[in-house]
Amino acid sequence: MIKNQVFSCFVFYAVLLVIKMYVIAIITGQVRLRKKAFANPEDALRHGGLQYHRADPDVERCNRAHINDLENILPFLFLGAIYSLTGPSLSVARIHFLVFFMGRVLHSIAYLLALQAPTRSLAYSVAQIPCVSMAVQILMSVAAYA
Amino acid sequence: MIKNQVFSCFVFYAVLLVIKMYVIAIITGQVRLRKKAFANPEDALRHGGLQYHRADPDVERCNRAHINDLENILPFLFLGAIYSLTGPSLSVARIHFLVFFMGRVLHSIAYLLALQAPTRSLAYSVAQIPCVSMAVQILMSVAAYA
Amino acid sequence: MIKNQVFSCFVFYAVLLVIKMYVIAIITGQVRLRKKAFANPEDALRHGGLQYHRADPDVERCNRAHINDLENILPFLFLGAIYSLTGPSLSVARIHFLVFFMGRVLHSIAYLLALQAPTRSLAYSVAQIPCVSMAVQILMSVAAYA
Repeated sequence: MIKNQVFSCFVFYAVLLVIKMYVIAIITGQVRLRKKAFANPEDALRHGGLQYHRADPDVERCNRAHINDLENILPFLFLGAIYSLTGPSLSVARIHFLVFFMGRVLHSIAYLLALQAPTRSLAYSVAQIPCVSMAVQILMSVAAYA
Repeated sequence: MIKNQVFSCFVFYAVLLVIKMYVIAIITGQVRLRKKAFANPEDALRHGGLQYHRADPDVERCNRAHINDLENILPFLFLGAIYSLTGPSLSVARIHFLVFFMGRVLHSIAYLLALQAPTRSLAYSVAQIPCVSMAVQILMSVAAYA
Repeated sequence: MIKNQVFSCFVFYAVLLVIKMYVIAIITGQVRLRKKAFANPEDALRHGGLQYHRADPDVERCNRAHINDLENILPFLFLGAIYSLTGPSLSVARIHFLVFFMGRVLHSIAYLLALQAPTRSLAYSVAQIPCVSMAVQILMSVAAYA
């Protein structure tokens, strides 16, 4: 399976996106330390006192970016893997993966830097196109068996 | 793998559920626009001003429905795929997938329409039954190797 | 695939972690009932009245533990499956899965019991090591095809 070229191409972009999600987690932790805003009293106690057990708009922004990734990148890990097994051509498949990858990277940048609307929504919408395309193609290829 | 009947049956319902999650995202966006309640100041600015950077109970309800899907549908994408590879009979497997599918569709409807309790909890519980069943069957089939 | 020893070993720990996530959902429900704190008015109405439609720090702690699992265990389900297909030795692979498994179990315990910092962060960091290791090894094994 790992020698299937389409699958390997998918895995490449998928793993980069998982790493991108890990980076958001690291950024969230750094923002928490810099803004001294901790969700848990035990963390606040370790970093100066219970007054730092508080919410912060920058931390919440990181959290929203992360949750949006869960909502979109995690389903892609599934759709992309199954789609790779339906026998698409490498060039068409690569375009699907690349558009999703670039859309989601731009989404994270737009979110964390609070770029002017509708940059972030546009990035989200562009990344959804290959997902819907893959979902439809998968449904067509398994409909006969379902 | 895609020609494995059980796997294809799983993929069919799994992809429909992924699309169902995408629909919740779209509904959330529509509710945000209708109620004029945006999580990000840059979005509020584009839609009338910073006063619309605010929370809204209907938006939060959509968010909770979406997060509950992340907690339940995403693990199903994993469990169902692995379970399909353990060689269950098609009819038994289809019942697992169908019960989960119908439970989760009802869960979303009950959540978004705020149907009387315990409709939503019941839908959640019913959908958990095939998941626990698949988890147990998978564990039994790999225990020898672990 | 299910007869691949490394894959079976991965599946064993992965399914246990999915069950661990289900347990957090059950605990959250129990805490909601005990503290009488419901996110939805329809649930509050069923359990004594709208005054119980309220937030509670213990419920929010459960929610944070659960979301942290979504952010970390769900990507592991993907990374571990792909990594298993790259042909690692069973002993090395098992260490990856076991470290992640134990790190995440400790993370949940530290979160729910509010253990002194930095127990929880340490468990999170330890569990990330095998994930980053698997991500790098996967990237190296597919880079030629991407």
